[in-house]
Amino acid sequence: MECSFYVPAWPQGIGVETIARDNDQLVEDLIQRFRSVRALTIDLCARLSDADATVQSMEDASPAKWHLAHTTWFWESFILRDHVPGYRAFDGGYAFLFNSYYEAEGDRHARPRRGMITRPSLDEVRDYRAHVDTRIEEAIPALPEAALPLIELGLNHEQQHQELLLTDIKHLFAQNPLCPAIWPCSDGGAAHANIRDITWIEGPSGISEIGHDGRGFGFDCEGPRHEVLLKPFALADRTVTNGEWLQFMEDGGYGEARHWLSDGWDWVREEKITSPLYWEQGPDGGWDVFGLDGLSPLDTAQPVSHISLFEADAYASWASAQWEGARLPTEAEWEVSAANVAPDSGHQLDEAGPIAPVATTGGKLSGMFGNVWEWTGSAYRPYPGFRPAPGAVGEYNGKFMSGQFVLKGGSCATPRGHCRASYRNFFYPHQRWQFSGVRLARDI
Amino acid sequence: MECSFYVPAWPQGIGVETIARDNDQLVEDLIQRFRSVRALTIDLCARLSDADATVQSMEDASPAKWHLAHTTWFWESFILRDHVPGYRAFDGGYAFLFNSYYEAEGDRHARPRRGMITRPSLDEVRDYRAHVDTRIEEAIPALPEAALPLIELGLNHEQQHQELLLTDIKHLFAQNPLCPAIWPCSDGGAAHANIRDITWIEGPSGISEIGHDGRGFGFDCEGPRHEVLLKPFALADRTVTNGEWLQFMEDGGYGEARHWLSDGWDWVREEKITSPLYWEQGPDGGWDVFGLDGLSPLDTAQPVSHISLFEADAYASWASAQWEGARLPTEAEWEVSAANVAPDSGHQLDEAGPIAPVATTGGKLSGMFGNVWEWTGSAYRPYPGFRPAPGAVGEYNGKFMSGQFVLKGGSCATPRGHCRASYRNFFYPHQRWQFSGVRLARDI
Amino acid sequence: MECSFYVPAWPQGIGVETIARDNDQLVEDLIQRFRSVRALTIDLCARLSDADATVQSMEDASPAKWHLAHTTWFWESFILRDHVPGYRAFDGGYAFLFNSYYEAEGDRHARPRRGMITRPSLDEVRDYRAHVDTRIEEAIPALPEAALPLIELGLNHEQQHQELLLTDIKHLFAQNPLCPAIWPCSDGGAAHANIRDITWIEGPSGISEIGHDGRGFGFDCEGPRHEVLLKPFALADRTVTNGEWLQFMEDGGYGEARHWLSDGWDWVREEKITSPLYWEQGPDGGWDVFGLDGLSPLDTAQPVSHISLFEADAYASWASAQWEGARLPTEAEWEVSAANVAPDSGHQLDEAGPIAPVATTGGKLSGMFGNVWEWTGSAYRPYPGFRPAPGAVGEYNGKFMSGQFVLKGGSCATPRGHCRASYRNFFYPHQRWQFSGVRLARDI
Amino acid sequence: MECSFYVPAWPQGIGVETIARDNDQLVEDLIQRFRSVRALTIDLCARLSDADATVQSMEDASPAKWHLAHTTWFWESFILRDHVPGYRAFDGGYAFLFNSYYEAEGDRHARPRRGMITRPSLDEVRDYRAHVDTRIEEAIPALPEAALPLIELGLNHEQQHQELLLTDIKHLFAQNPLCPAIWPCSDGGAAHANIRDITWIEGPSGISEIGHDGRGFGFDCEGPRHEVLLKPFALADRTVTNGEWLQFMEDGGYGEARHWLSDGWDWVREEKITSPLYWEQGPDGGWDVFGLDGLSPLDTAQPVSHISLFEADAYASWASAQWEGARLPTEAEWEVSAANVAPDSGHQLDEAGPIAPVATTGGKLSGMFGNVWEWTGSAYRPYPGFRPAPGAVGEYNGKFMSGQFVLKGGSCATPRGHCRASYRNFFYPHQRWQFSGVRLARDI
Repeated sequence: MECSFYVPAWPQGIGVETIARDNDQLVEDLIQRFRSVRALTIDLCARLSDADATVQSMEDASPAKWHLAHTTWFWESFILRDHVPGYRAFDGGYAFLFNSYYEAEGDRHARPRRGMITRPSLDEVRDYRAHVDTRIEEAIPALPEAALPLIELGLNHEQQHQELLLTDIKHLFAQNPLCPAIWPCSDGGAAHANIRDITWIEGPSGISEIGHDGRGFGFDCEGPRHEVLLKPFALADRTVTNGEWLQFMEDGGYGEARHWLSDGWDWVREEKITSPLYWEQGPDGGWDVFGLDGLSPLDTAQPVSHISLFEADAYASWASAQWEGARLPTEAEWEVSAANVAPDSGHQLDEAGPIAPVATTGGKLSGMFGNVWEWTGSAYRPYPGFRPAPGAVGEYNGKFMSGQFVLKGGSCATPRGHCRASYRNFFYPHQRWQFSGVRLARDI
Repeated sequence: MECSFYVPAWPQGIGVETIARDNDQLVEDLIQRFRSVRALTIDLCARLSDADATVQSMEDASPAKWHLAHTTWFWESFILRDHVPGYRAFDGGYAFLFNSYYEAEGDRHARPRRGMITRPSLDEVRDYRAHVDTRIEEAIPALPEAALPLIELGLNHEQQHQELLLTDIKHLFAQNPLCPAIWPCSDGGAAHANIRDITWIEGPSGISEIGHDGRGFGFDCEGPRHEVLLKPFALADRTVTNGEWLQFMEDGGYGEARHWLSDGWDWVREEKITSPLYWEQGPDGGWDVFGLDGLSPLDTAQPVSHISLFEADAYASWASAQWEGARLPTEAEWEVSAANVAPDSGHQLDEAGPIAPVATTGGKLSGMFGNVWEWTGSAYRPYPGFRPAPGAVGEYNGKFMSGQFVLKGGSCATPRGHCRASYRNFFYPHQRWQFSGVRLARDI
Repeated sequence: MECSFYVPAWPQGIGVETIARDNDQLVEDLIQRFRSVRALTIDLCARLSDADATVQSMEDASPAKWHLAHTTWFWESFILRDHVPGYRAFDGGYAFLFNSYYEAEGDRHARPRRGMITRPSLDEVRDYRAHVDTRIEEAIPALPEAALPLIELGLNHEQQHQELLLTDIKHLFAQNPLCPAIWPCSDGGAAHANIRDITWIEGPSGISEIGHDGRGFGFDCEGPRHEVLLKPFALADRTVTNGEWLQFMEDGGYGEARHWLSDGWDWVREEKITSPLYWEQGPDGGWDVFGLDGLSPLDTAQPVSHISLFEADAYASWASAQWEGARLPTEAEWEVSAANVAPDSGHQLDEAGPIAPVATTGGKLSGMFGNVWEWTGSAYRPYPGFRPAPGAVGEYNGKFMSGQFVLKGGSCATPRGHCRASYRNFFYPHQRWQFSGVRLARDI
Repeated sequence: MECSFYVPAWPQGIGVETIARDNDQLVEDLIQRFRSVRALTIDLCARLSDADATVQSMEDASPAKWHLAHTTWFWESFILRDHVPGYRAFDGGYAFLFNSYYEAEGDRHARPRRGMITRPSLDEVRDYRAHVDTRIEEAIPALPEAALPLIELGLNHEQQHQELLLTDIKHLFAQNPLCPAIWPCSDGGAAHANIRDITWIEGPSGISEIGHDGRGFGFDCEGPRHEVLLKPFALADRTVTNGEWLQFMEDGGYGEARHWLSDGWDWVREEKITSPLYWEQGPDGGWDVFGLDGLSPLDTAQPVSHISLFEADAYASWASAQWEGARLPTEAEWEVSAANVAPDSGHQLDEAGPIAPVATTGGKLSGMFGNVWEWTGSAYRPYPGFRPAPGAVGEYNGKFMSGQFVLKGGSCATPRGHCRASYRNFFYPHQRWQFSGVRLARDI
């Protein structure tokens, strides 16, 4: 998902509850939430060196320093600059360096060149953050009511970047042949629950509603809420595990054209893909997996992650030999199935550390939120009635609505509080540096 | 749309009425239809030289000779080889050269190298056709009943290639700076009907059915027929005209990022796109259009064609200033609206000649079939319950179901008899060498 | 070698003997030579179909039709248009299509698009040739004396294209999986002379002269003639054979980095080069070679051809294990060694047919002219005192003087009469679709 | 120039005077030189942050940290590991990360990925250097005599990397839109000497010797020393200035195909080259130049630098309107002209700081050493008798001998003591991130 949340598009989007100006408690809560969210971003980067935070490992990723500064630029511009009289920019050049907005309009080479910015340093960017944080906290109590929803937007924007920050850092560290660990190895030593075979959980068919209902924050692309008509279906109680994925590999899954979408088959062959991202085969044939805590032996009970839509789809095709008609769920099937699951449940990001998916026991619909984003078979396209804000200058989520697929549910790197059933994450079918996995579905 | 109709996938697809072996009239009719379809293919190439029929103008296109031979290879393989005892191949090497099937399995360089095959010559390929045609006509009366549906499949396959043949030839001739005409200029001299402004035609909302109903021939991806739930909507009575497109261009449509999908904006800038394909601006600023009859002045009353999904979508965005909420129709909206329109009506391919779209009068839903394929906003994805045939070796339509959009209705180059409301044509959003246009839709 | 012979550069180049206007015999001889050269070009294409003559197999190559028309355009422009009052162009569009001159100035995409020109047809181009030939023969007796050197230039230009025509056709036919033959297989059945091991022939060291001496025709880059200072050296009596090359291959030559120039090693690995161009290994491990007469078993006695400079250089490195200090000859070493060899001797192009190198017996310096072009270790750079003609508009041979290496001596596809010791052919070090081979040298 | 100095190739190269083991003064001098050279490397990086030292700005460049570590790896491997019994590697992983040697054999993707190595940090690399330096200084007095030449090789290797370090850093900082300065702006305020027009200095024609004579250190490619035969020529007394280059630009030099080598013209158009590297045109049309001290106004009196061979050659072509026959000097012309110039004279690198070329007064042959590397028109090819060491494993300078041109003399970034007349620097004709300039030559 691109960072693409620009102020003009937002007010037309999904509702944000108005914060009454006379409610001191709400204001205080907002300040606390601001502090907490901003602090987590800093915590996530606490173990990064100046160099770690500067290098860009691929065009799709951004340096940690850029995430730190860009989110800060958002607060500085849309709160301090626009709503605090007399505020002067911390540094005049930062808006150019850390503003994703101008990129679309201007020089297309900017994005892949983000890793060239060795100065300002990580410490200077931290100073920038601290400066802006102080000023925001001072400003909140006196902000005009109309500006308060921007705080909500800024917090959600920051949370999105927290997840990207983790996945971008992981991608960078994976380029280093020494496989450095950011955090000490998490204890994976406990005996793993035996993973039982898939149980199929029937979902609600017929007419249901999906999409954001306007209560609480949502991005514009999540609405309007609308009815969908579903045929009888079931979802797997859990996502596919590393162990099951190994069977797919050992059965030659990556080498059989018939399982693959045509574009996926091209991708597999051109990129010589033979396993999920971050898997490395040792000289003895065993598999290790690179994570934020370095290289560890593959845990077969964990959900498979870092797979592309192409891989998820090929797996479903392969699995249909066992489960007739196995396929990816549609976005609507997933969303109606998740309607009664608490979005802040599950394995989500609470604090900095060696984030990784965990095994789930299954049996009932488990792991819907958190753990791994779940690829759906739904193209990321507008909902009926979706309309870019009239008169909006520039960008909106709708501009990304070609060629991408929807993922649902959130991952172990999604900050708790950021998930909801209507959330529409989206990536191109070949991308896989997010914690992306797959839950099977089938007609019944 | 790729040519991708392989025998194994077909019987699981959409029903084909069985031809009773004891019905002489039906057999005779089938032979007549075979003759007529095969003859049209030859007619379409009648004015081509050996060189015209050999060169491949881009990777997406195939040489005319390849189309001529590949369709013949289909008949030779799946009827003569499989169902006529003792048949020996016309030429042992042709299966390798003209068989799209093996490509997916084998050497991926084959497709872009189709234009390297200067031998066999066009005349030799015509001989190949004549030989196979004679043998097929002899064989039909004695074919086993199970083989007769293959005739139906072969005819539809051939018709698909007739359209590609025309659009591929057009693309090739457009590369020649001398702008050669294949057919003499059609009489475009008659006064054109004034094109009236768009009238909006309300379509059927609520629950409707789309997809192939199993009566008559259909490709596997058209089914299963299923219910869809539609919100109130209207379609424009006609597709966008060249004159309207000129207004879009003159209003700077190709230069404003806000109208474009993000991938579309990249495409416009990288490819320096400033008009539909085949438009050329003269020194006086006027526009000419290249066609199968050479270069002619732009006819503002004609439907715009040879536009990409990106352009169609940008146009809708631009047009929403005039028609609030203007957008592309979904596939389902288009199909339910077309339910009562005769699929063999409209401007479709009846005989060889300088094929081009024609102006339609509008006022009621006009030009739904024929004239130009109409981009929808629907990604080409499987219908609920769609399933590749179990045990099918190789290819099926489903393999193309990522990254492409659906077009509906057929064009002036679609052979009459080939269209139906459930037909799902599909191309990548940047492709535009087909006769592709756009009909606006909106919520009501 | 690019076709790059533009009139303005030529008169400053190397001398052409003036044809006295009152010498009827010389004029008659000139007409005869014109006829003979022009006829050979047509003969070389006699077995080509319209399609054969139209397709372009790679960017480096041109279609046969282009060669036929481009050489004719030269005569039409620089003789008929410039020196025959009242001449009107055969077809106004041809100058644009077949004029390599405007390309450099204008659209850089033109060259790779030469294969898109299906019309005019091969027959029309033949008519164009016939028309121009008639008019040239009529015109020669009355041409102004100043124009006569242009005839000489035109003949040499045509001869260059004769060689390119053959190598470009060969490259095209090699793309066809059916390996079609243009000419019937030549008789290779005779027992081959045993190839003896290399004999080293000492060349003249000290100060010698190289470069064109101004007598007879030469291209500008061949001069000025100048002194060079050579250390004692020897050349191999013959070029490397296919049999010797097989030993290099079997000894792992293509897989050992130490033998290769750094750029060459990149090329070998990126292009997956494992043998000379046109070699194909059969299922039994034996080698066939594709030629103008189709596929034939490798003749180990023949000179190796279709190798790149990179391969030639790697071979010399490998061979230095046997012949200490083995290396490529310099251009000067080759040229002074060839000083007393008749340039019209050897296996050169006399008539159309299945051109291929032939085994030479060796023992003395053999095969210097004809058979295969011999890579030298000399970069193609200007001779001391070389200077592009002052005031010359546009192009001259000097513009190609970066990154290319010199080849000497001519090949079996070089028209007899076109070779001379000072001739400087040049190609990039990876190119190998010419009949290019290698003769070793060493210090003594 | 690639870093390509491997031990096995060196002893066969150019002579190094043996250091007698019993000469304490020489040993002490060697230690002093070692200390001084190693200290300069550290000084050059003193102002770099961890991020500055880690990022790789393009494939041709390496991160500063890599230079620091790679040069240290050289000392650790070829002195400590090979000649100090019991030495254990500082860190086992460093050899893999910082060893250019294995790259050629192994994974070709390693070089462009050097910028991904965020760990070890700059400080850890400095520790590595300090550790190795201490051990080397301890070891030198007891080293076997055979090892002492390796010290000489290591010092020269280190000096090469000092220059690359500066030019790579400059390139990196130039990517930052904020144009950060590494050192404070040098005082360029003094009134500049008026630059007089070129004076032509005749060089020694006839037979001369060039190449390394075996006294003192030299790289293998500099020998053998050999005779060359030169025609009368003259060199310009000084290199071309920025002011003269501006005239070339203002006269349309970058837009006229006739001045350019064919490959150069392609490069100019594809890369949209319109000025030397690091020149930036302000909104007022004036030119600034980026340097190690940030952005400064163009100094017209300074030598032009950061030009490619293509640009140098085009300039000479353009200048021939004024100076008939102006061209680039050959390597031999340059070297014989420099025979009596002290190689340690001129503007060379003595200490860390904002290195930049300076204006020279001219009148006599000035600026031959230091200031800017001078492109020659000579391809980088082996000297007569050059031979890679028999039995040498792997790499040697000769492997780069295709496609590159020789530069002579050294630059303001070349450490004083590293230059000599026989030094052969080489780069591809499009490369220009070194301090490369041009001195004209002509025949007389």
